[in-house]
Amino acid sequence: MRNLAGRPDLCSINTATLGYQTSISETIEAIARHGFGGLSPWRREVEAGDIKVIARQIRDAGLKVASYCRSTFIPATTQVQFRANVEGNKRAIRDAATLGAPCFVMVVGGLAEGSKDLTQARDQVVQATAELLATGREVGVRISLEPLHPVYAADRSCLNTTAQVLDICDRLEPKSGDAPWLGVCLDVYHIWWDPDLDRQITRAGRRIHCFHVCDWRLPSRDPLNDRAMMGDGVIDIPAIRGVVERAGYVGFVEVEIFSALDWWRRPVDEILTVCKERFASAC
Amino acid sequence: MRNLAGRPDLCSINTATLGYQTSISETIEAIARHGFGGLSPWRREVEAGDIKVIARQIRDAGLKVASYCRSTFIPATTQVQFRANVEGNKRAIRDAATLGAPCFVMVVGGLAEGSKDLTQARDQVVQATAELLATGREVGVRISLEPLHPVYAADRSCLNTTAQVLDICDRLEPKSGDAPWLGVCLDVYHIWWDPDLDRQITRAGRRIHCFHVCDWRLPSRDPLNDRAMMGDGVIDIPAIRGVVERAGYVGFVEVEIFSALDWWRRPVDEILTVCKERFASAC
Repeated sequence: MRNLAGRPDLCSINTATLGYQTSISETIEAIARHGFGGLSPWRREVEAGDIKVIARQIRDAGLKVASYCRSTFIPATTQVQFRANVEGNKRAIRDAATLGAPCFVMVVGGLAEGSKDLTQARDQVVQATAELLATGREVGVRISLEPLHPVYAADRSCLNTTAQVLDICDRLEPKSGDAPWLGVCLDVYHIWWDPDLDRQITRAGRRIHCFHVCDWRLPSRDPLNDRAMMGDGVIDIPAIRGVVERAGYVGFVEVEIFSALDWWRRPVDEILTVCKERFASAC
Repeated sequence: MRNLAGRPDLCSINTATLGYQTSISETIEAIARHGFGGLSPWRREVEAGDIKVIARQIRDAGLKVASYCRSTFIPATTQVQFRANVEGNKRAIRDAATLGAPCFVMVVGGLAEGSKDLTQARDQVVQATAELLATGREVGVRISLEPLHPVYAADRSCLNTTAQVLDICDRLEPKSGDAPWLGVCLDVYHIWWDPDLDRQITRAGRRIHCFHVCDWRLPSRDPLNDRAMMGDGVIDIPAIRGVVERAGYVGFVEVEIFSALDWWRRPVDEILTVCKERFASAC
């Protein structure tokens, strides 16, 4: 297991952590100034600007793009809407390639509007992922399915466990070899509760594309935007990272904190300072 | 699959649904007056009175006790506290027998105070359950482990999936035959999101001791006390009930709605009237 002390270069900052207080240009500059190794920008930041210019600024700052966040929700009640969702994601995957992102993070969406059919939503996700995987291979971007906490099953993601995502990976890419194009984005916030977690992480092996950290605040005031800074909650982050790294993962440890009630109200430099401290001491 | 229309006798009312607005005596009378077949009282109601008197009133009202709610949380940081938790549950199981309850519902607790060790919490639950199962057999009360939604893993239950509970059942009672003393309490609110649900319900078979209904409100304003009336949320309740009944379940369908923001503010008669309607039309 890697020693993270004094190694912020192993840390990627997901830009959502900073609450979109600054322009993407200022965000890149701040993340580099604090010594981090990478970042994961969001489409709202990238699509609003010139992608090639943003990609160059990231490279010039000495940063790597860890991943590109995130997919348009997939489940739909009409074929027209479903196709629009898939095509929107194809465009985003091409943008990910332009940006130099090694992978595209898929938060797939929950139930389609007005639907109670989770099975149908999940079937649509599998169908769309097969198509997006082909696009990813064409342009050199890996597709990373993110299982989200079951609390989001209705409205944000019908993929809710690591096992479920790996079953889809095995089905769509049965012979993946050493460098699977389809894989999983593991976020401790979403998976820490899972009684089958260690076994599934080990099973994931090289399919682990990303590893995200934050913490589960107790009590949680809002399951969506009340995540805690690493060390301020109840998740045993080093234990989970140990399993992830024993499974072969050597990529960034990425900080992603949605915190409307706390961290997003603080200055960017303060957030990054504390992220760096806690990355070293609590992950 | 049973037709529930005109059959409120197949419905049990979990008294928490009524928000503890009335005494247990008035609650029993109201549930019987509306034609329901059973009820599940809570310890806060039963322990405050004379259990034999309450049991007689329930019988005289023509009602059955569906189950007795619920266990003291088990995980503890000291052996003294752990023993106290186990002994508290033994007393409650004996009370369940006095009450005439066929089963005791176990909501087992999350992490012990100040702990981040989910595995240890789960180990303590297995150890305690083995002991409580023996008490249950002695006094004729089945032990029903309730998997709670993963959103409660930290603070209310470290049992979070049906598979996890069934693994414990198989371990502690490997030869259960036709009438297992250890089983599962299935609540659609906790399990509806599970990608492995149908398979695990089928696996559960005669271990299904209870089946609870309510609905998942969208958006949820509070994961704990913002449950919806059946039909007002996104859970496909009839689909889940179909799987439960094909697995052999023939017991009560129990209504359990925690709703501080809505139903608990309404009069008991209104709550019960709507429960009866929705039991017939939305379950």
